[in-house]
Parts: sequence; structure tokens; C-alpha cells
Amino acid sequence: MSEAQDERVGSDAGEDENTAPTYGLNEEIVQDIQEAIEREDSAYLHEKLEDWHAADVADLIEQLKPKLRLPFMRIMEDRIDPDVYSALDENVREHLVDEMEPAEIAAFINELELDDAVDFLENFEEEDRRDVLNQIPPDERAVLQEGLSYGEDTAGRLMQRDLIAVPEYWNIGQTIDYMRDTENLPDEFYEIFVVDPRHHPIGTIPLNRAMRSKRHVMVRDIMDAEQKLIPVDMDQEEVAYLFKQYRLASAAVVNDDGALIGVITVDDIVDVINEEAEEDILRLGGVSEDDLFSSVYRTIRARFPWLFVNLLTALAASFAISLFDATMEAVIALAVLMPIAASMGGNAGTQALTVAVRALATKELTTANMFRILNKEALVALTNGSIFACMVGTVAWLWFGNPLIGGIVAAALVVNILVAGVIGMIVPVMLERLKIDPAIASGVFVTTVTDIVGFVVFLGLATLILL
Amino acid sequence: MSEAQDERVGSDAGEDENTAPTYGLNEEIVQDIQEAIEREDSAYLHEKLEDWHAADVADLIEQLKPKLRLPFMRIMEDRIDPDVYSALDENVREHLVDEMEPAEIAAFINELELDDAVDFLENFEEEDRRDVLNQIPPDERAVLQEGLSYGEDTAGRLMQRDLIAVPEYWNIGQTIDYMRDTENLPDEFYEIFVVDPRHHPIGTIPLNRAMRSKRHVMVRDIMDAEQKLIPVDMDQEEVAYLFKQYRLASAAVVNDDGALIGVITVDDIVDVINEEAEEDILRLGGVSEDDLFSSVYRTIRARFPWLFVNLLTALAASFAISLFDATMEAVIALAVLMPIAASMGGNAGTQALTVAVRALATKELTTANMFRILNKEALVALTNGSIFACMVGTVAWLWFGNPLIGGIVAAALVVNILVAGVIGMIVPVMLERLKIDPAIASGVFVTTVTDIVGFVVFLGLATLILL
Repeated sequence: MSEAQDERVGSDAGEDENTAPTYGLNEEIVQDIQEAIEREDSAYLHEKLEDWHAADVADLIEQLKPKLRLPFMRIMEDRIDPDVYSALDENVREHLVDEMEPAEIAAFINELELDDAVDFLENFEEEDRRDVLNQIPPDERAVLQEGLSYGEDTAGRLMQRDLIAVPEYWNIGQTIDYMRDTENLPDEFYEIFVVDPRHHPIGTIPLNRAMRSKRHVMVRDIMDAEQKLIPVDMDQEEVAYLFKQYRLASAAVVNDDGALIGVITVDDIVDVINEEAEEDILRLGGVSEDDLFSSVYRTIRARFPWLFVNLLTALAASFAISLFDATMEAVIALAVLMPIAASMGGNAGTQALTVAVRALATKELTTANMFRILNKEALVALTNGSIFACMVGTVAWLWFGNPLIGGIVAAALVVNILVAGVIGMIVPVMLERLKIDPAIASGVFVTTVTDIVGFVVFLGLATLILL
Repeated sequence: MSEAQDERVGSDAGEDENTAPTYGLNEEIVQDIQEAIEREDSAYLHEKLEDWHAADVADLIEQLKPKLRLPFMRIMEDRIDPDVYSALDENVREHLVDEMEPAEIAAFINELELDDAVDFLENFEEEDRRDVLNQIPPDERAVLQEGLSYGEDTAGRLMQRDLIAVPEYWNIGQTIDYMRDTENLPDEFYEIFVVDPRHHPIGTIPLNRAMRSKRHVMVRDIMDAEQKLIPVDMDQEEVAYLFKQYRLASAAVVNDDGALIGVITVDDIVDVINEEAEEDILRLGGVSEDDLFSSVYRTIRARFPWLFVNLLTALAASFAISLFDATMEAVIALAVLMPIAASMGGNAGTQALTVAVRALATKELTTANMFRILNKEALVALTNGSIFACMVGTVAWLWFGNPLIGGIVAAALVVNILVAGVIGMIVPVMLERLKIDPAIASGVFVTTVTDIVGFVVFLGLATLILL
């Protein structure tokens, strides 16, 4: 990480013996730095970390033993780039910020871009936030407070307010001169907005097109009149969808009156896409938040609700089984084979569910094609169910020497896989219609159904046929 | 979708009664267009779709009944923007392209950007691809063939070859004049690369900085010397990681000699991030590919392997249970309660697993902090396990009036949830070390272990204590 010029990443990662797929960080580096913190060797740490990128420093802090994190921050003092805080995992950041004075935090926030600053502040307790805001100059405080006034996870929170907007009767020369005179432009921006006298966006010019035009060319002659405008209260998931769908690099944000008030760039969207994908993955796995760096207490609390729901499900399944205890007592082979249909159904249901949840998130599954796809799902389930029924039926027959038992488990398997496929597709669609996130609640519904159907059909058939 | 100028999306979606979260598309529009296709009303379709964005047309085609897709393409003929094909779901695209002549396909490909064209061609059968390439002018064919020569899912496939590279001794005026004279620049680019005489990148200038500088300013005086370089053979997942980690808008791609050969921009990365997140979600759900638009046969094949693995797992669990059939025959309550410990363990294991898979993907979980996190996971599992053991033990005691049965199920629950938490964290880490995608294989390992441990501990304890 120390070559300042040709910092070629990844390609030379294979040279040392470290197989961990991180770039700058590996166990030895972390160990080395931990030892330097323990002996309070500030000269070594300052030199070692001099050229590190903020994101890598944040990664380092996450990897440090928790009790060394604060000493590290104290040793590094004002050499910590505020962007390090933006890049930190929320749990780790909270823990560190708790130890800082409001004035210290305010100084950091002043150096962040608006969206990062708002993101930073939004996780504070009401009171702490007020203390910090009081330390910030009134002008900037007002901007921050406006940022905080937009709903969490909306376009308003993602946007930058600094942008270049010019009237259509200007030429490129005037535009360039205006840009040269404007302070406070964001580091990254990709287009110039053209606005009417009411400050409504009427067009956009990619920077490269502006640059390649002569000074006398009129703005109105080279602008694209078509553009996607983003209402300030649009949910960030919808904003991300627009960026993906239309491959946008940046887009104008407008208020209720249609006036241009900010700009969102695609690099902010990368974070949103990540967040949304992470949310879906975690929710499908029955975890309410990324708890890797959470405290034990918080992790327990985060995991508890799903386990509790699962407990109710498991008890319901046990109750269903208890209805057939006499049958099992008579033929104990049934107790042995009982989990198979339930487990296969659960698996088939999860497959259908996963495809459906994903297809809903990408808007590929809609009311227009739902029945067609449900049809296909049923056909797939019936076919796979029949194939596996033959296998399981044969194994059960040979195992217990009873063709009837084989037939019963085979029949239960077909029914349960079919139910699983259909339910796995329908439940997410229904939850989406009820405006419940399909990822959060589908799994438990589907496996409850497949467990109970699996046990009841298998044991019920056995009771009818064998007793 | 017909306002050409102020195409404000989303904000007016609430005006009609459609609750589906699509923008232009809803059931009525799809129905309306399907009817127009059926009556071959080309005038209506041409007018209706005139201002549609390629991505929306692609969505429409996906929503159409499969048998209407080809007639639709025939009616629209050369009014279909080639980008529509790039935006189409792979399965749907394949089906349509099968019906087209090589010359027709070649004409489309000629209009696509390089990365889209390569993406389009890579899914063709060897022979079909040759037929299409033969229809393309030699110069462009060579470029395409080079694009195809890079490994699938590598930086080489993502990059654009058209870029602006200037020597450090130029000034901004020369740079701008050069840009004005250069044809074939991509629509979107955000930085100017500075190269040495061997064409090695030595710096980069964001477009906006170049634009705001006077003509006499030297390139070397305003360039950023630090930049992330991407080796052409880097895996796209790593490329996406770099873009996320360092919030890059674009980055230079270099060949083995370190020479600049292309550029990757963040909008291409948005697709990669999506793809990789989708892959993780699907794999965790036991599906090998997004099969929403796949044929029945292909979907069956895609889902079969996991179901088969699950079958083996289920049979192994049944075999474990069969070891205790005498115990169950003696106390049938055991058969009734048997699924609880297995199911709770499976759920707890999936939670730990999901967090671990996600943390490995984001490189937050590493060898440096693995033991610390494993420790925490064990503590969480022990606590949650104990709480649920109390609940389940009490329920089982009251249900069957036997405190011993309550105690046995409680003990089995603690053991299994603890094993689940630890295994759920260790298995993904081990798979990652073995260079197997943790998302694809973790679930089945973990649930196999939790099933078998759940059944064996519960029934084993019961055999020891009750018999």
C-alpha cells in the first residue's frame, strides 16, 4: 500500500502467501499494527498509515480488537480523514463516536459531503444530534437540518445540493467561465443542468460534450431535452431501480413544484444497491440486520424474533404430528421416514421463493405474467416431485420391505413439492401486494406450510392406508 | 411515457389505480399491446412505443406472452433499438435471436457499445458466433474478437477501449483540442488519463477539473498521481469491490505490461454488483440461476441438483432416526417432539451462515477477526439456545406431563443451536479458504449437520435417560 504512484492493486496480491482476498489488509498487517498500538508507537503508526485510503483505514479499524480501536484513534488524532468515519461499519462507528466530544464530531462533519454528513448524523440520538448541530456554523447547520428533514432512505438523503445549472440562452463559453468562478463544486459530477427561469430542469449536457464544444455554441443547441427527474421524496430503492434501468450516471432531483434542488450520482447508488441487496439476503436468511460487529446483546435481540416465529412453527408441526401418534406407534417406520417429505418440500419451496423474491425486486415478476409463471412453476414442481418420489419410494420400499410405505412416502412427496412450488411463488407476490417486503416474511410462511403439509399428508395417507 | 420533455417518473405513478411498482408498464398496457399485436396493428404499435426507452421495451417484451414476442419484433422491425437486446433477460433474448439471420444480428451488434456487443455474442454457440462475426467488417470484428478473448467475468469484458489519454507535457488547451478532434468517444466518460511514452498510466484528471482550468495550465500540474489500476484479467467481483471500496467513477485497465488498454466506468459496475448480489441470493436459496424466464425443462434441470443433495441429506437424517426406533416405539412423544430441535437448529444455523456469507462477500470477515467473531457467535447461540430451551422444555413438560421429556428436548435444543451457530460461521469461512463460493454450498452442509445433530442428540439423550 505504500507505492504512491503506481498503486496497482490485486495483481500483486498473489506474491505473498496470504490467501485472504483483501487488498492491503492481512492478518500480519493487522497484528503488526495492533502491536504498535499496544506499545503506543505513534511515529511508526503515522508513517505506516500515511498513504492509506480512508476506506482501508476503516477496514483496519473494524479488524482491530475492540479495546484497541479507541487507543488507535487517540494516537492517530487529527490524521484521521473524516471519510474514515463514513466508511466504518455502523456498529463500530457508534462505539467510537460515543467517546468523542460534540465539538470534535462537528469538526469532522464539516469536512464531509452533505450526504455523508447526513448519513453520519441520522444515527445519533435526538439530544446528541442537537449538541453536535449547535457546534456547526448556522449556514451549514441549516443545510444539514434540511437534509435531515427528508425521510430516511429517500432521494433527498442521497442528493448533493451543489451542482451547475445554467439558463438555455447561455453559450458554452459563459458556462465554462461560470464553472471556473464557482466554489464548492462536488469532486465528482458528470453533467450540466439547463433550467428555465423558474429553475425547472429542461435539459442536460454531459460534461464531455460541453468540453468538446466551441465557446460560441449555445447551451440549448447541444442539451438533451429528455431526462429522468427524481422527486425528492422517492424511495431510494426506486431511485436505484431508475439508475439501473436507464443506466444513468447522474440525475436531477426536483421538489414538489418541479424545481431543481439537487443531483444524485451513480456512485451513491452503488451503496444503495449494495444495501438493498444486503437487506434482501439477510432477510431471506432470517436476520434483521448485519450484526457482524454488533454487541452480543444486540445480536441476540436481532436473531431472537425469527427463532421465536420458527418455534411456533415447529410446535405447530409437532401438534400436527401428534394427531397421528397412534399410527406411528403401530408402524414406527413412519416416524423414521417422516422428515423426508417435509424437508424436500421446504427445499423446493425455498427455491421457488428465492426466484420469486428476486424477480419481484427486479420487477420481472408482475401481475401481467404471474399466472403464466405460476403455471410453469407448477409443471416444474410436478416433474421434479415425480422424479424424487420414484427415488424415495424405491428406497423406502427396499428399506422397510413394504411397497405400501414406499407408495405413501412417494405420494406425500409429490403433493408437498407441488404445494411448495405454488406457495413459494404465490406468497411473495401476495406480500408484495400487501406492501410487506416479500424477503422478510416469505420464508417462514412457506416452510410452515411445507412442514405441516409434509407431515400431515404423509401420516394422514399412512393412517388411511395402513391402519 | 409519452411526454417527451418533462418525463417525470414515479411521481405520477400514483395517479392511476395500478399498485404494481413498475413505471411505464402495468397489466393494462401489456394487455393493450398484446391485443394490438394480435390484430397486427403496426401503426398503433409504432406510435405507442415511439418514445419508449430501450430498457422499457425490453421489459415489455419479457411481459408479453411468449408466442407474441416474435410477431411483435417482426411488426416493429428496424424500429427496435439494439440496446433493447442488451437489456433483455438472457433466456428471452436467446429465444428471439434464434429466429434472426446472422446478417440481421451483425447489424445490431455493430450499433452496440463494445462491452454490450461482447456480452451479446458470448452466449452464442461457437458456430453461430462465427457466422455473425463473418458479417461484421474486419476492423470491428478484430476488436470484438479481442473482447471475446478475455475470460468471462473479467475486467477485460467490462472495459471500453475508447478513451482519452494524453502525455503529461501537454496543456489543457491541447487536450481540449484533441478531444474535439477525436471521433468514437463513448457517450459517458468522466476522466482524462495521463500516460508516459510507454502508454503506462501516470495520472488522471476528472473532466470537471479539466473544464475549469485555463487553456495554458499543464496537464501534469493538475493531474491526480494516485489512481487504482485494474489488471485486465481481474475477476469482475474484485473489480466491483474496488469501485465500492474506493468510490471510483471510472478506472484505467492495464495489460500485463502495465500499459493502458481500456477504461471501466461505474455504470458497468452497477450491473456487476447486481449480478453478484443476485448470484449470492439465488445460491443461498439453492437455485443455480435466475430461471424466471427459463423453459420448464431448463428450470427443472436447474433446480434438480439441490433437491437431490437435499434428498441425500434427508435420507441420512432418516437413517440417524432409525437408530432410535426402539426408543420412539417405547415413548411415541419423542417422535412428536423430534422435529423441534432440528428445525430450531436449522434456523439458527441459517442466520449465522447468512451473516457469515455476507460478511465474507464484503470482506468484513477475515482470518484476523474470525476467532473473535466465532466467540461472539457461540455466546449468542448459547444465550438464545438457553432461552428457547426453557420455553420448549416447559411446553413439552406440560404437554406430555413428563419433566424428563421437557428436560431432554431442552438439552437437545441448547446443544443443537450452539452447534448451529458455530458451524454456520465456520463452514462458509472454510469453503472460502478452499476457493468454493460459500453461498453455493454452505446451506446444505449446515442444515445436514443441524438435522442430524438435532435428531441424534434428542433421541440419544432420550434413549440414555428414559430407557
